[in-house]
Amino acid sequence: MAKRVYLFNEGSKDDRELLGGKGANLCEMTSLGLPVPFGFIITTPTCREFFDSGNKLPGKLESEYRVALALVEEHMGTRFGDPDNPLLFSVRSGAPVSMPGMMNTILNLGMNDEIAEGLARKTGNPRFAYDSYRRFIQMYADVVLGAEDEPFADVIEKHKAAHNKKLDTDMTAEDWQAVIEQFKQLVDFPQDPQEQLKSAIEAVFLSWNTPRAIVYREMNNIDDDLGTAVCVQSMVFGNFGETSGSGVAFTRNPSTGDDHFFGEYLANAAGEDVVAGIRTPLPITSLEETLPEVYQQLFDTQALLERHYRDMQDLEFTVQEGRLYMLQTRSGKRTGRASVKIAVDMVSEGLITEKEALLRVSPEHVEAFLHPMVDPDAKQDIVARGLPASPGGATGQVVFSADEAVEVSKNDTPVILVRRETTPEDIHGMKVAEGILTELGGMTSHAAVVARGMGVCAITGCEDLNLDYKAGTVTTDDGVVIGRGDTITLDGSTGEVMLGDIPKTEASSSDDFQTLLTWADKHRRLKVRANAETPEDAAKARELGAEGIGLCRTEHMFFEAERIDQMRGMILAEKKEERATYLTKLLEFQRADMLALFEVMDGLPVTVRLLDPPLHEFLPHDEEDMAALSKRIGVPVEVIRERAHSLQEVNPMLGFRGCRLSIVFPEITEMQVEAIISAAILAKEKGLNPFPEIMIPLVVNVREIRRITEVIEKGILKAMEEKQVSIPYKIGTMMETPRACLGAKRLAPAVEFMSFGTNDLTQMTYGFSRDDIGKFIGDYLDRKIVEQDPFVSLDQRAVGRLMKIAIEDSKIGRKGIKYGICGEHGGDPKSIRFCHEIGLDYVSCSPYRLPVARIAAAQANVLEPVPE
Amino acid sequence: MAKRVYLFNEGSKDDRELLGGKGANLCEMTSLGLPVPFGFIITTPTCREFFDSGNKLPGKLESEYRVALALVEEHMGTRFGDPDNPLLFSVRSGAPVSMPGMMNTILNLGMNDEIAEGLARKTGNPRFAYDSYRRFIQMYADVVLGAEDEPFADVIEKHKAAHNKKLDTDMTAEDWQAVIEQFKQLVDFPQDPQEQLKSAIEAVFLSWNTPRAIVYREMNNIDDDLGTAVCVQSMVFGNFGETSGSGVAFTRNPSTGDDHFFGEYLANAAGEDVVAGIRTPLPITSLEETLPEVYQQLFDTQALLERHYRDMQDLEFTVQEGRLYMLQTRSGKRTGRASVKIAVDMVSEGLITEKEALLRVSPEHVEAFLHPMVDPDAKQDIVARGLPASPGGATGQVVFSADEAVEVSKNDTPVILVRRETTPEDIHGMKVAEGILTELGGMTSHAAVVARGMGVCAITGCEDLNLDYKAGTVTTDDGVVIGRGDTITLDGSTGEVMLGDIPKTEASSSDDFQTLLTWADKHRRLKVRANAETPEDAAKARELGAEGIGLCRTEHMFFEAERIDQMRGMILAEKKEERATYLTKLLEFQRADMLALFEVMDGLPVTVRLLDPPLHEFLPHDEEDMAALSKRIGVPVEVIRERAHSLQEVNPMLGFRGCRLSIVFPEITEMQVEAIISAAILAKEKGLNPFPEIMIPLVVNVREIRRITEVIEKGILKAMEEKQVSIPYKIGTMMETPRACLGAKRLAPAVEFMSFGTNDLTQMTYGFSRDDIGKFIGDYLDRKIVEQDPFVSLDQRAVGRLMKIAIEDSKIGRKGIKYGICGEHGGDPKSIRFCHEIGLDYVSCSPYRLPVARIAAAQANVLEPVPE
Repeated sequence: MAKRVYLFNEGSKDDRELLGGKGANLCEMTSLGLPVPFGFIITTPTCREFFDSGNKLPGKLESEYRVALALVEEHMGTRFGDPDNPLLFSVRSGAPVSMPGMMNTILNLGMNDEIAEGLARKTGNPRFAYDSYRRFIQMYADVVLGAEDEPFADVIEKHKAAHNKKLDTDMTAEDWQAVIEQFKQLVDFPQDPQEQLKSAIEAVFLSWNTPRAIVYREMNNIDDDLGTAVCVQSMVFGNFGETSGSGVAFTRNPSTGDDHFFGEYLANAAGEDVVAGIRTPLPITSLEETLPEVYQQLFDTQALLERHYRDMQDLEFTVQEGRLYMLQTRSGKRTGRASVKIAVDMVSEGLITEKEALLRVSPEHVEAFLHPMVDPDAKQDIVARGLPASPGGATGQVVFSADEAVEVSKNDTPVILVRRETTPEDIHGMKVAEGILTELGGMTSHAAVVARGMGVCAITGCEDLNLDYKAGTVTTDDGVVIGRGDTITLDGSTGEVMLGDIPKTEASSSDDFQTLLTWADKHRRLKVRANAETPEDAAKARELGAEGIGLCRTEHMFFEAERIDQMRGMILAEKKEERATYLTKLLEFQRADMLALFEVMDGLPVTVRLLDPPLHEFLPHDEEDMAALSKRIGVPVEVIRERAHSLQEVNPMLGFRGCRLSIVFPEITEMQVEAIISAAILAKEKGLNPFPEIMIPLVVNVREIRRITEVIEKGILKAMEEKQVSIPYKIGTMMETPRACLGAKRLAPAVEFMSFGTNDLTQMTYGFSRDDIGKFIGDYLDRKIVEQDPFVSLDQRAVGRLMKIAIEDSKIGRKGIKYGICGEHGGDPKSIRFCHEIGLDYVSCSPYRLPVARIAAAQANVLEPVPE
Repeated sequence: MAKRVYLFNEGSKDDRELLGGKGANLCEMTSLGLPVPFGFIITTPTCREFFDSGNKLPGKLESEYRVALALVEEHMGTRFGDPDNPLLFSVRSGAPVSMPGMMNTILNLGMNDEIAEGLARKTGNPRFAYDSYRRFIQMYADVVLGAEDEPFADVIEKHKAAHNKKLDTDMTAEDWQAVIEQFKQLVDFPQDPQEQLKSAIEAVFLSWNTPRAIVYREMNNIDDDLGTAVCVQSMVFGNFGETSGSGVAFTRNPSTGDDHFFGEYLANAAGEDVVAGIRTPLPITSLEETLPEVYQQLFDTQALLERHYRDMQDLEFTVQEGRLYMLQTRSGKRTGRASVKIAVDMVSEGLITEKEALLRVSPEHVEAFLHPMVDPDAKQDIVARGLPASPGGATGQVVFSADEAVEVSKNDTPVILVRRETTPEDIHGMKVAEGILTELGGMTSHAAVVARGMGVCAITGCEDLNLDYKAGTVTTDDGVVIGRGDTITLDGSTGEVMLGDIPKTEASSSDDFQTLLTWADKHRRLKVRANAETPEDAAKARELGAEGIGLCRTEHMFFEAERIDQMRGMILAEKKEERATYLTKLLEFQRADMLALFEVMDGLPVTVRLLDPPLHEFLPHDEEDMAALSKRIGVPVEVIRERAHSLQEVNPMLGFRGCRLSIVFPEITEMQVEAIISAAILAKEKGLNPFPEIMIPLVVNVREIRRITEVIEKGILKAMEEKQVSIPYKIGTMMETPRACLGAKRLAPAVEFMSFGTNDLTQMTYGFSRDDIGKFIGDYLDRKIVEQDPFVSLDQRAVGRLMKIAIEDSKIGRKGIKYGICGEHGGDPKSIRFCHEIGLDYVSCSPYRLPVARIAAAQANVLEPVPE
């Protein structure tokens, strides 16, 4: 029979699995000789036994923990249930992984009427004794008996009112005694300390299966069989007088990362009082003055613990009558800046390796170096919440159109562009805005994708807002009206909209950050590329570490003022010859654009996607714009109207777009190929090294690829022959329909690379339109139907399975295919780790996501299990 | 070394794989002792050898076939290459499966100048000899040398013009000799018969890999490795004079199925002349008068062959100078009515079994018993083509709106409803129309689905049409204008639109057909259910053999006049209480509808799908209708406009619909469940046996099912407890997102049945919107990018793979789940076979598809390989 009960001196930090995280750390501190109030732990396998036998404690358990209890009594010199010298316990759950939603702590367990009286006697502090007792009853009723707290609070309130007391501190021992008498009528509360302990242990085990805990485990893929341990620890008291107190501390500054001992201390207070913030605690250094020896001991302890754990620690301690007790140590939470500084410092201190340093930084932490961030402490007047579409913070005057944004921002006034949704026609306004806020659209809507690409803060799908363009106002669901010209602040990292100008931290790189990125590049296998179309974005991408362009969306080049009319003319053309005239003009634009891109990306691959969006996206949609276009290009307005109407689709996302355009209008593809290859030839003639990779979008079968590849190769070979130049090129496909993934074996022989377009793949796998998901995703998240928006982090279960099928199957069809991802997931750390694990060669993301991607890629590689 | 060459007396009909279909049948006839011109066959493995060695004939092959040739010479008493007594050959390809796109036949192979002269001498018919020779040269040049035919035709034309000849029959031996001389200058034509033969054999092998043949194999999943055989057969001549001739015949009447020998004969003509239709052939009985002995022999032969092959045969024969030669036998093509009659007759004749009879009827053939069909011989004035959305033929006056359809049809005038597309608001017009024609929409668009459900002929996605509602005209791409009131005919089985009233065959069942259906029911494993909402449709479905309702789309019940306003009120309600008032009214309607359905379906399961479509589908979309609604239900028109606008979606197919509605508005589900269960209780109280099955649509994960199931079960249990009645019920899900299929293991424990909604599943797997597919599917089909519209026949490769994954994975999660399909594929024979093979329990389809489904299900079962 395996041992079910461990004393604190019988385990170590490596026993998380057996003793839970909390228990393992208490054992570790005990074995380091630190002053930990003694106690014992009931193991996690015991929890499984409990469930396996129909929620019954194993028969032998009680005698086992009674032995441990006796040893604790001996160690502490007090006795559980002895009114003259009582030992009290805290009882906590502790699972192998940190898991919210489980049981709250019960403090002061082991009290009853007699012991309260004894404690009052022993301490000479009856108020302390009865306050402790009534707290215990309340906690026990709540946690073990599942009683509502309201009747208890009610008793206290009524007593206070009747006796003219305001605060808890006004209550005397007698007051609490009166309260306790009433409490005892509310619950059937066991006076026997042993019975209390047994019930508390059962309650901890049962809390493993609360609905909240189950949902949490399901969401985080935590094994239901792990079970929880139970920590039973002797109580110490910080509220014993002026030489007592409680505190929390960090071994380094968690905001800045500076290597200074940092924390807070509250004299004559229990640990819970520090957390509750009833009085304001003093800096930890205050202890140096009042209890210098305790401070020195604490200081040495924190230094020891940091060295021992090789990470910045978050400590909880209590001082009881001038004696220090350590209650907890764990790795401390920290800001992004601090995490980078601490990691880099610890490497130079020789405490950790570069690889470990990389794992210490959460990729999201990197945001702080790239964007101004809203100061979390300064946040106020949050009037609406949307989706955190593009990180960072921004403040500006509200404008309601792109033109207005351009106009107002001319005299350097910062603006926030507020729209129902954005379209390619809004780009000029988006470019000048500090931040973008839309009522509709998901995390991969036009506004979100473009904003991330520009590194501009954005909130999308903010359905709390009701826009009235005509009135020039936006009204929140709570009735707050924001008018044109009002100042608001967006937090694009959280999705919060605030009134006024909320302080922000400046974005700025640091040497530490650069050092960390260098290490990331050294330790990653995945390449990183950028999604970019303009030379400016491409230059930014190179600066931020891009090793190529993974997605150049050629259609973006056609939305610019001069070009769009040529594009429209081409779409409106009724005959092939007419279309050819427009295509010739578009060719020139596209060639120039491509040349500029090849120049910036000299020596690196550039993946160019063929025209993808439905054609009607290019046409004007209201009568006024149609009339204007008609005048400009000389096509009757009826023709424009008719054509726009006939191109309209019920579900454009599933419509006439992607390679379907290339099949029906091969002449468009011919033009694009000519532009790409002739630009590459020009670049080559300038002495540069262009590496074009042509990508065919929205493929469902190999015949599409074969037919389009024919057109592409014909164009390339002709151009190369004419100029007697050889350009290395690749032809590949975007994997963005479930059918492409499921049929990858057949696609494989026809392609040299496959790039997963996980935006569309997610849309089709879920049947979620990224433009419409706002209608229900809020409800889905609130009700925990989905753990997160699948457009933010890749759904590994289904979308990921399609990717794995595609990779495995395609390898049967052809060896040596290069695999990448160019959906928005390419910049999401969790998704990047998955991409690494399934063997992709590169991820491609918005330029501003590159540092995040580099670190995430390195982490994935460092974490990869060594193959056996 | 395997034998490469088989004489006709060395094989049998079971050697298709080795000798090809044609060769195997020639061997069979030979071994039956029938007069087959002798010859030999080069096997299909030889074709593979040819390719494996880089398109070279195996070294030994020539000596092998020369041995066979010598034996043929001996048998025929003539010699290959002997001018005095020449043996000539026809050379044909013949693969194990019939495969168009391969080589044409070469006739008269073995001729050269000398032999032509010899043949002229021997036959005393120089015109015959030189005509045969010039034909040979032309065929050889075309088929073996790949020469264009035009220069040859040119030579003949010029010769005719110069010599004042009009018809080929005007040409004399000398004329043909002159032509031959010129032909020889056009091609480098080998005089050596052995060389001709060798090149012809190579050409047959090479024709296996023409692009057309490759595409055909890819489309039909034919193994590229099969290869083709080569049939080398002695020539006989029907154009030798009045006691010669050629004919084709059927052992029974292929139109009616009557058991009478049936065919045509043309005296003094080669086989190719009969096919070319230069002169009109006489009925086969004419032979009885002119050559009674030959006729008797032929008659006996056909009887023998039919008995031998146990199927109606299609024969080709030639009579040379009073001697009968059999050239081919194969199973004959027949009409739907004939196929049923022949199959049933042959069972009573003891010739075949019931199971075999079932395999003899193509499920499409059944259409003729269910719908009037356009007479294929009467077709004319085809002015447009669309998708064959609902089978049968219909003639009527053109109307352009549902109201107009109702108005005009009042005095029994048949109408054809022509619309851009249809919506639920057009139902009343669709009900009275003879046929429906739409410009937009695919095979599963609203018009198509509803028409099939009603058994009404329909053509959708007819993009050749340009509708002008205002002018009341529709103009075809070729400029034909059809106005209101004009009579047109639709062929819904082919998608053809014709002007005027084209004759149609009447739909009528027959005893034979009923017999066949009885056999189908006896021999199938798959159950068949119907998609139906109304008691009328359900009654029709029962009549046509439904064993339950597989899909009752509850929303259809809300589109009826009275109800739609309640539905709209519910959607427009801003508060839950307000919504509740409308729901109460809807509840009454829905309960009554469900009760009526349970009554008709007494004793059979009824699968009821919860509300599925996006809510905006119920709201009016134009100002006039909005104003009218506002008046009727007292909601301000601005509210209606605002709500309609806010519910509008970019891609409604991927939007706020299906179970997403149940999650956000559980009160709608509560109402629906109450309606279903209280109707079932009422039915039970009437002494009936209702079996409701509640189906949750558009699921992506198990949490959706869990949450909705909670609502469903609460409602059901409450109602049953109140009434103290127990109703057997099931809860299941529609599998229609790729994610549901890929995550089926997790869904399984929460459901009792899974019904594949392959319409949506196909949309999402391909990224093809069924409403928009018309924009490119024509091009895709024309260019052979897809072999067929995936909405018509299930895409087994990807959609089918998802279904298989779902079934396999869900069986891990739970045993005993019932599997069905309720997409439109449930009525498609090929898809039904697939459903049988992957182990579904039932298919559900439109009532009028049930007979087709029953036969297809039986065929699938009969064809299922016996497990080893």
